[in-house]
Amino acid sequence: MEGFKSLARVDDALRLLLAHTTHRPRPIEVDIEDSLNLISAEDVIAQSDFPPFDRSAVDGYAVRSSDTLGASLLSPVELRIVGEVEAGTDPSSLKPLGEGEAYTIYTGAPLPPGADAVVMAEDAVREGDVVKVQRQVTRYQNVSRKGEDFQAGKPVIRRGERVKPWHIAALASLNVRKVNVYRLRVAVLSTGSEIVELSDPRAGSPGTIINSTKPLLKSLLRADGYEPLDLGTVPDDVELIANKLSTGLREADAVITTGGTSIGAYDVVPEAVRRLGKVLFNGVRMRPGKPTGAGVVDGKPVFMLSGFPVAGLAGYMAFVRPTLLHMTSSREEPLPRVKGVITRRVANIAGVRTYLRVKVRATGKGYEVEPLAITASGVLSTLTEANGLLIIPEDVEGYDEGDEVEVVLISPPEGL
Amino acid sequence: MEGFKSLARVDDALRLLLAHTTHRPRPIEVDIEDSLNLISAEDVIAQSDFPPFDRSAVDGYAVRSSDTLGASLLSPVELRIVGEVEAGTDPSSLKPLGEGEAYTIYTGAPLPPGADAVVMAEDAVREGDVVKVQRQVTRYQNVSRKGEDFQAGKPVIRRGERVKPWHIAALASLNVRKVNVYRLRVAVLSTGSEIVELSDPRAGSPGTIINSTKPLLKSLLRADGYEPLDLGTVPDDVELIANKLSTGLREADAVITTGGTSIGAYDVVPEAVRRLGKVLFNGVRMRPGKPTGAGVVDGKPVFMLSGFPVAGLAGYMAFVRPTLLHMTSSREEPLPRVKGVITRRVANIAGVRTYLRVKVRATGKGYEVEPLAITASGVLSTLTEANGLLIIPEDVEGYDEGDEVEVVLISPPEGL
Repeated sequence: MEGFKSLARVDDALRLLLAHTTHRPRPIEVDIEDSLNLISAEDVIAQSDFPPFDRSAVDGYAVRSSDTLGASLLSPVELRIVGEVEAGTDPSSLKPLGEGEAYTIYTGAPLPPGADAVVMAEDAVREGDVVKVQRQVTRYQNVSRKGEDFQAGKPVIRRGERVKPWHIAALASLNVRKVNVYRLRVAVLSTGSEIVELSDPRAGSPGTIINSTKPLLKSLLRADGYEPLDLGTVPDDVELIANKLSTGLREADAVITTGGTSIGAYDVVPEAVRRLGKVLFNGVRMRPGKPTGAGVVDGKPVFMLSGFPVAGLAGYMAFVRPTLLHMTSSREEPLPRVKGVITRRVANIAGVRTYLRVKVRATGKGYEVEPLAITASGVLSTLTEANGLLIIPEDVEGYDEGDEVEVVLISPPEGL
Repeated sequence: MEGFKSLARVDDALRLLLAHTTHRPRPIEVDIEDSLNLISAEDVIAQSDFPPFDRSAVDGYAVRSSDTLGASLLSPVELRIVGEVEAGTDPSSLKPLGEGEAYTIYTGAPLPPGADAVVMAEDAVREGDVVKVQRQVTRYQNVSRKGEDFQAGKPVIRRGERVKPWHIAALASLNVRKVNVYRLRVAVLSTGSEIVELSDPRAGSPGTIINSTKPLLKSLLRADGYEPLDLGTVPDDVELIANKLSTGLREADAVITTGGTSIGAYDVVPEAVRRLGKVLFNGVRMRPGKPTGAGVVDGKPVFMLSGFPVAGLAGYMAFVRPTLLHMTSSREEPLPRVKGVITRRVANIAGVRTYLRVKVRATGKGYEVEPLAITASGVLSTLTEANGLLIIPEDVEGYDEGDEVEVVLISPPEGL
């Protein structure tokens, strides 16, 4: 665990990377139903009021509220029915309502001129052309007012906001069919003479190791609403890597590499990045993920992550996710967190950010947090068995058994 | 706000619905990269150890750890290099390491017989056939042990678990290419003579209301990993609705209807459900969403949600989500929650569950929670402007200004 002192702090490294990431992705126009979970590239402003007219929120009788004053079950008010309003009726075609009159009205139908409230069907009894109103209504009762949802000029979604189901619903209600969004494409390249792709015929034969870090990163990208572009796996060769990087930088908004960044020996990936642009840092004070670096080529970020999957996840969380959000002026979605009591002592190294995999269990008195693994950057079962991540900040020396800690939940807690 | 007393409590209604939901969806086999966010339909058990052999975690020299005892920068230990092991080498083809010998070894390469540790390249100096080891290593240092990640027989993912990026990575590393998952198909049918589809040429003409609740529900289903099947919008006609329900029940694992459940007047949707199966409840003690119901046909659930979008969301959260999880023996994902201080008084009705839309703001001293809307079940802007939901339980009469409450975050808090 030596060798952290000369390296950059995670927050300093990220700040440097964000400052150099000047590329801004191009918006694309999509049907609103295809925009879920993508980042809006525009402020969408309501062009008209919604609802576009005062409309009934119930089935019943459109009335002048003043006519119903004092109406009750025992002393109903009688009104004369002068017509019926169905949904889809153009309100300007309706005869205005006079004193003592009512229209039969259906949910969603426009209020006729002169009416200012609706009596629910269950609060009235109809007898021929007469309706006996058994409950008084106040002005605008059971009415959806024109513009009560969106007034013309009001924003429905802002640039940088993530599109949620209710944004799609609001856009539909305003008759907006397309929206400009960002759908970042991120190329992923694995390096390492020792690994084969799952699709490679050699996969599974003696002595081979199947690439698991690339599927992990592609899935993380997809889960975050990005489009991964798979550049495959190349051996530890600067020329080959530089060629693939060029392809990735041409086709995508950012590139992630895995492997080839061990801090000793030969740093093939940083060397390839240097040929095309600039390496900003190589090695950071985090674990797992010490051999994480980043560079920039023509304003596009190149994330140099560890070839070990758990270290790759830490690098994704620490650098990839915040940088991609920065490129679309967006903010990180809130993560589910829970507080619990740690079941045994955990030491941290001063100045290092640690991603500890933990198991969170509900007890009668709250949650307990069992540390599973601090290092073991290649051991995926430390993630599949975990349901939480305890991110230990740089200024915390560790925790004693019984300390309260806050954990990011990655799966449901046990014992619930 | 009257009329709650005769209705079912949400938890009682849900219990009844789960007890009648006996249909179990059929698993489908997908490529592991297509399984993200779906529910595993099987326990996947490791068929072999992973790593499949002891392998080097670094580039360096495979040694007998006992040979390095006392090695340091000032008194290095000299070992004779007898060969090189690259990744992909079949370990059984290697000559066993003798005393005083070392192999050059690369990351991921199998440890030769006789070796039990690896000296990192930066801790040694090579001179021809001799390596000077400058740092002592302990047994299995810099070695990934056979089976340290997954031993044969160990579960990688269990039935009912949601597939996360690390599961996909673990399956890849074990050479598992396909996995059985549930991908529930859920049909969505809107009813109401007053609404038109966004795709309808009439959309936007005077007096028409565009269906926003169906796009909302389809997006919620997609976000949860389900496949929506759009059955369109039909008028309030029992025969037409029953026909569409039959189609939905034949093609899908569950059906959601919107609209046509107003507790008074004519309950066209419940009547249509009754023709095919059984209505379990119609109207529940929640707001928005009082006119929410459910039925069951041949063990498949039919959710009868309000036609108003916010009430539809509440019905989805209260009934659809837990029932669909129940059908796949799965548990709800943890939701991001935050505690804050409420900025003004909110009253609740005894025995009613309330979905209050709120705005959460970070202040210097924590979070404040501003109530936006309790009712307004048709007003989508109460969701697009909110970043949190305060779900007020049945046994809480309300909150006073300054009370601490826990909110589900639906978007990032303001002021961060």
